[in-house]
Amino acid sequence: MAEQLERWRDKIRKQLSQERQAAIALLQEWVQEPSVQGDERSIQEKVAKQLAAMGLKVDLWVMEGAELINHPYFVSPRTTFANSPNVVGVWSGTGGGRSLILNGHVDVVPAGDEQQWQHHPFSGSVIDGKLYGRGATDMKGGNLASLLAIQTLQALGVRLKGDVIYESVVEEESGGAGTLATILRGYRADAALVPEPTNLKIFPKQQGSMWFRLSIKGRSAHGGTRYQGVSAIEKSMQVLQAINRLEKQRNERISDPLYATLPIPIPINVGVIEGGKWPSSVADLVKMEGRMGVAPGEEMEHAKAEMEQALKQLAEQDDWFRDHPVELEWFGARWVPGAVEEDHPLMQMLQESYQQVMGNAPVIEASPWGTDGGLLTRLANTPAIVFGPGVTQVAHYPNEYIELDAVFQCAEIFALTMMKWCGVAEEGAIEQ
Amino acid sequence: MAEQLERWRDKIRKQLSQERQAAIALLQEWVQEPSVQGDERSIQEKVAKQLAAMGLKVDLWVMEGAELINHPYFVSPRTTFANSPNVVGVWSGTGGGRSLILNGHVDVVPAGDEQQWQHHPFSGSVIDGKLYGRGATDMKGGNLASLLAIQTLQALGVRLKGDVIYESVVEEESGGAGTLATILRGYRADAALVPEPTNLKIFPKQQGSMWFRLSIKGRSAHGGTRYQGVSAIEKSMQVLQAINRLEKQRNERISDPLYATLPIPIPINVGVIEGGKWPSSVADLVKMEGRMGVAPGEEMEHAKAEMEQALKQLAEQDDWFRDHPVELEWFGARWVPGAVEEDHPLMQMLQESYQQVMGNAPVIEASPWGTDGGLLTRLANTPAIVFGPGVTQVAHYPNEYIELDAVFQCAEIFALTMMKWCGVAEEGAIEQ
Repeated sequence: MAEQLERWRDKIRKQLSQERQAAIALLQEWVQEPSVQGDERSIQEKVAKQLAAMGLKVDLWVMEGAELINHPYFVSPRTTFANSPNVVGVWSGTGGGRSLILNGHVDVVPAGDEQQWQHHPFSGSVIDGKLYGRGATDMKGGNLASLLAIQTLQALGVRLKGDVIYESVVEEESGGAGTLATILRGYRADAALVPEPTNLKIFPKQQGSMWFRLSIKGRSAHGGTRYQGVSAIEKSMQVLQAINRLEKQRNERISDPLYATLPIPIPINVGVIEGGKWPSSVADLVKMEGRMGVAPGEEMEHAKAEMEQALKQLAEQDDWFRDHPVELEWFGARWVPGAVEEDHPLMQMLQESYQQVMGNAPVIEASPWGTDGGLLTRLANTPAIVFGPGVTQVAHYPNEYIELDAVFQCAEIFALTMMKWCGVAEEGAIEQ
Repeated sequence: MAEQLERWRDKIRKQLSQERQAAIALLQEWVQEPSVQGDERSIQEKVAKQLAAMGLKVDLWVMEGAELINHPYFVSPRTTFANSPNVVGVWSGTGGGRSLILNGHVDVVPAGDEQQWQHHPFSGSVIDGKLYGRGATDMKGGNLASLLAIQTLQALGVRLKGDVIYESVVEEESGGAGTLATILRGYRADAALVPEPTNLKIFPKQQGSMWFRLSIKGRSAHGGTRYQGVSAIEKSMQVLQAINRLEKQRNERISDPLYATLPIPIPINVGVIEGGKWPSSVADLVKMEGRMGVAPGEEMEHAKAEMEQALKQLAEQDDWFRDHPVELEWFGARWVPGAVEEDHPLMQMLQESYQQVMGNAPVIEASPWGTDGGLLTRLANTPAIVFGPGVTQVAHYPNEYIELDAVFQCAEIFALTMMKWCGVAEEGAIEQ
């Protein structure tokens, strides 16, 4: 069997090599689409056309309706998505195999300050084996790896037994409404791969997260008699300390060896602070916004309750907080955590394929951030593994790029994994 | 002599009583002028007309020019004052007496949120002996007391030996450019009274103050791996602690008994904080703005140097600050501190007059905030005492008001004090 696998690997590699220039051109085309939130129609129509040309059954639709908007997992700053369709393409299997979702998002975060980019943010320039541009790493490069895996198997005449469902979704960067809509539309599978930029590390577990906003009250006074007031800025320091204590407590409980290398497996980050209006006045209100990490196996409601409790305890150390409790609001984005068992068959196949393609064992870690994989795992009962090309460190940053070799390595690994997971219907099948 | 003084007090009181309704109507008219920064022309023209009708030599001018703008004490968010003239009226003495400046500002701070006002912010409504409106207390009521003191002495036929210089200035709320301009135009005197709202307490010493802005740096990272970054929000907590330590050190040195009742004689107030842009990112920059109190006898440069030193010391406790020093900027408003000796003759006369009018000894305190008195004392060699009607607590707040009785009491005290300080030229002179 090892020989057979090596033969397939070589065939796949050769085929990918032949298509390399065309594939890079396609990725350039995708990156040149500035598909920030609200502007995803153009790229999605291209993707839909591409999938149709490959013979997949294509579904392009604008998500809407009360079931979506009122769903407990729905999070988005908007409620209408006219210019942001979802796309799903199904490569139907011959039957009798396990189905697989390949999920990736086309929405990208804004380019930010263009001055900080060496090339235009949506240039798609290729230099020294790297393709530059917003979205190259997060995660159009990953999407291309999925697409290439299907194309390559097709070109080699491979028919899979199980369905492969290619999902090109919107709204991942805002909390996953796009993937939620695919689930509500009925798309599920026996497992999923999500090629977010992991530097080709395998993430069977993903941290979830949710955003919170704290309002800390003070009492105004003139700065020259500041002792007559209560500074909301000084009070916010106490709140920050309470949050740091909570973070410490929550992380001391984490014993999963996958987290062994992370200094703070599930951080609580206060990212924004704003308060006071006048240098000569005592600030009577400070607002802080942050992100609370949620452990892969933890219920989000449990994490919320712990935050509420930590803030309540402030009243015990300070009467001011007893009379003026900190207000807590959960708002904006939220990513559901997810966990797939390490001995899950897809985990094993993915590791084997990695070894086969890369010649060494993969790194397996827990993801420090959430992806749409959490929704698939928790809500759709579709265990999702996050694994993809793309450089984690440059996601959301100026001069984002992707190493092109990794895209093709990932495609090779995916193609082999799909053959194992879905099963091969005809001549050349790999024994399980 | 006590009898003679009592006779004059009674005459002055009777005269003020006769003019009470007209005086209240004038104050209403002044308060109904929304003379916020940039809109002082209308009230200043009224004041000039009034002073001219009283026979004073009136000087109305728009301040300008390089000498003003480049002066080390010039502070203003603007450099042209077309709609904001200054007014000075001189009531010339017969000669041989001490001169006195009566200094007050007509600029008022903005009304703020009108919803929080029971009446219109510029109504001038009189209810239960209180006149309501922005500027009633800070400090049009005090200005009226000065004007009434002159009017009353005139009505009683009193001629003073020394000049009385009535200054109606702009820009006090922004740091004193108006009073600076009067000094540069040549107006000086042997002493000054500044009827800012002190609740009729006598402030021979005034805290100065200056605004600062701190930029505290961090290093950005994704919130899910926040340990890869450095939070400027957490670093700003250390900066706040350093400022609190500095405040403590500076106040421990204050031994002046005038400060005995104040918990923090010269506070450092951080009034504004702002930093970070995204809940899921580690903040890489926090800005804090505040007001540093300066002791009456202290050089502003000395206070600045202490702040710089305190920030530099952060590098000793934390390498981050060594490599990323906190940036310090002095910006915006600044009020020069001032001090008049407690045994200054004008102090004694003011206290005597207070006792005579109020029947008890005045409260003498150090002012917790700066006024234009600091500029007069330090720059014009015109020792200035701050004493006026008006309710300190409501200055700059919604529903600002002034107790009308206090305005007339202040006018009575000023009239008696002027007779003593400037000397009376004709029949009825008070012996010194």
